[in-house]
Amino acid sequence: MIKTCVVIGSGNVATHLARALAPHIEIKQIFSRNIGHARELAASISPACNAVDEADAVCRDADLYLMAVTDDSIAALTESIKWCGNGIWVHTSGSVDAGVFERRRSRYGVFYPLQTFSKSKPVDMSQVPLFVEANEERTAEELQALASKISGRVSRLDSEGRRRLHIAAVFACNFVNYMWTVADRQLRMCGTDIHALDPLLRETIEKISSLSPAEAQTGPARRGDTHVMERHIAMLDEADARLYELISCQIYNTYHHEQD
Amino acid sequence: MIKTCVVIGSGNVATHLARALAPHIEIKQIFSRNIGHARELAASISPACNAVDEADAVCRDADLYLMAVTDDSIAALTESIKWCGNGIWVHTSGSVDAGVFERRRSRYGVFYPLQTFSKSKPVDMSQVPLFVEANEERTAEELQALASKISGRVSRLDSEGRRRLHIAAVFACNFVNYMWTVADRQLRMCGTDIHALDPLLRETIEKISSLSPAEAQTGPARRGDTHVMERHIAMLDEADARLYELISCQIYNTYHHEQD
Repeated sequence: MIKTCVVIGSGNVATHLARALAPHIEIKQIFSRNIGHARELAASISPACNAVDEADAVCRDADLYLMAVTDDSIAALTESIKWCGNGIWVHTSGSVDAGVFERRRSRYGVFYPLQTFSKSKPVDMSQVPLFVEANEERTAEELQALASKISGRVSRLDSEGRRRLHIAAVFACNFVNYMWTVADRQLRMCGTDIHALDPLLRETIEKISSLSPAEAQTGPARRGDTHVMERHIAMLDEADARLYELISCQIYNTYHHEQD
Repeated sequence: MIKTCVVIGSGNVATHLARALAPHIEIKQIFSRNIGHARELAASISPACNAVDEADAVCRDADLYLMAVTDDSIAALTESIKWCGNGIWVHTSGSVDAGVFERRRSRYGVFYPLQTFSKSKPVDMSQVPLFVEANEERTAEELQALASKISGRVSRLDSEGRRRLHIAAVFACNFVNYMWTVADRQLRMCGTDIHALDPLLRETIEKISSLSPAEAQTGPARRGDTHVMERHIAMLDEADARLYELISCQIYNTYHHEQD
C-alpha cells in the first residue's frame, strides 16, 4: 500500500495532484529545479513536507515517486536520480510510454489525469478521470487503489490507449479552443466577441449529452449548402479560409459520401 | 406596432419563434409546403391559427411575415407570393442579405436568432441573441420592439456583420462539433467515448469565461512540442492527420511567430 510520496515537479499538474493526495498519503518532499516553486508548493501541503532541488537530496524510501514534469524531462530526470529503490515510479503524461522507466526502475507506471489545469483555478479532482498503468499487476492495483481515493473515475489504460486518449483531448479541447479563437476574431470585426455566442456554445455542448457528436452535426457543410460555404470562404483571410475549406470538406464527405 | 403575424415555414426555427411570439402577438397563419407540418405547428399555437399551403391563401393584412425557411427558398417564395401589401417581410437567415426583398416588398428586414434549434428540445428564448435589420428606421424600431418582448439580448446588425456572425457560429459550433466527432472516434478505438472527456470539455468552455480563447490556448502546438505532434500524426488516418497538421500548424504560427 502506498503511504508516502515524493512529488517531482512543481507546475500545474504537480500542484493539483499533490494537494489532492495530501489528505490520503504523506507527501514527504517536493523536488523541483526551481527551488522557489518547490518551497511554495511544499509550504501549501504541510510543515513536514520539504522542498529539494538536487537529485541526491531526494529521499530513497518513499513508496511513490510521482513525476509531473514536461514530457521531455521524464527520461533525463529519471536518469539523473540514479539510485533505484523499491518505490513505484510514475509519470503523469498523456503521450510518454510507461516504458521510459524500463531498465531504470523495477516498479513503474503511469498516473494520468485527463484535465487541463491552471494553478490559480481549483479543480474538483473527484470528477477528473484518472488512467493508470503499470509494469506488473501488483503495482497497477496499488496505483488504482490510490487513484480511487481522490477520483471517482479511475480506469486502467495501456500506453497506446493513453496516447489515443491524448489525441482525442487535443481535438476536443485544444483544437476546439482554436475554433473559438477564430470565431472570436470574426466577432471582434463586427464589434462584439465570443460571448455573443454563449447560448449557442452551451447548446452545442449540451446536445452531445443526448446525441453522439456525429448525430448532432449541423451547419452548411452538413446540409451541403455550397452557396453559403463559398460566400463564407470569400470573406475569410487565407489561413482561416484554408481551415474552413478543409473542415467543411471533411464534414461534407462524412455525410454526403453515399450520394456521390 | 406589430400585432399580427404570418409564419412562413414549419421547421425548427419557425416552430421555436412562433411559440415564443404567440403570447405577444396574434399568429394568424402558418404557411408551409408541407401542410401536415403546418397543421401540427398551427394546432400547437392556438385554435385561431390556420394552416395553409398555397401562396394565394396567405392573408394580406398581417403586420409581419416571418420567413423561417431554407436560405435558397427565400427569394423563390417571396416571388411566388406576388402581392405586396404594407406588412413587414423578414427572413431569419444568418447568411442571406436583407436585399433579397428589394423591389419585391416596401418594408423588409431580418430577424436572426443566433441559436441551434431542435424541434423536440425546448429553448429559453429569453437568452437567445436576436439580431435585427431593416430597410428603414421605423421598420427596424418595430422589429426591435417585437424582438425585445421575447429576448433580453437584441441587437441591430447589418447584413455583412450578420454574415460574419454566421461564420463565427460555424467555427464555434459546427466545426467544434466536428472536432468532438474526431475525438469520439479516437476514444471508441480504446473502448470509451466522448463522455470520458466531459470534465475536460466543461473546463475548456469555462476557461473562456475568464480568458479570451487566444489566452486560454494550451496543447502540444501551443507549446511547440513537435515530438508529441509527430507521434500523434503517425497514429491518425489520412483525413484526421491532415486536419491535425493544419490546425497545429496554425496554432504554432500564432504563438511562435515572433521566435521564427
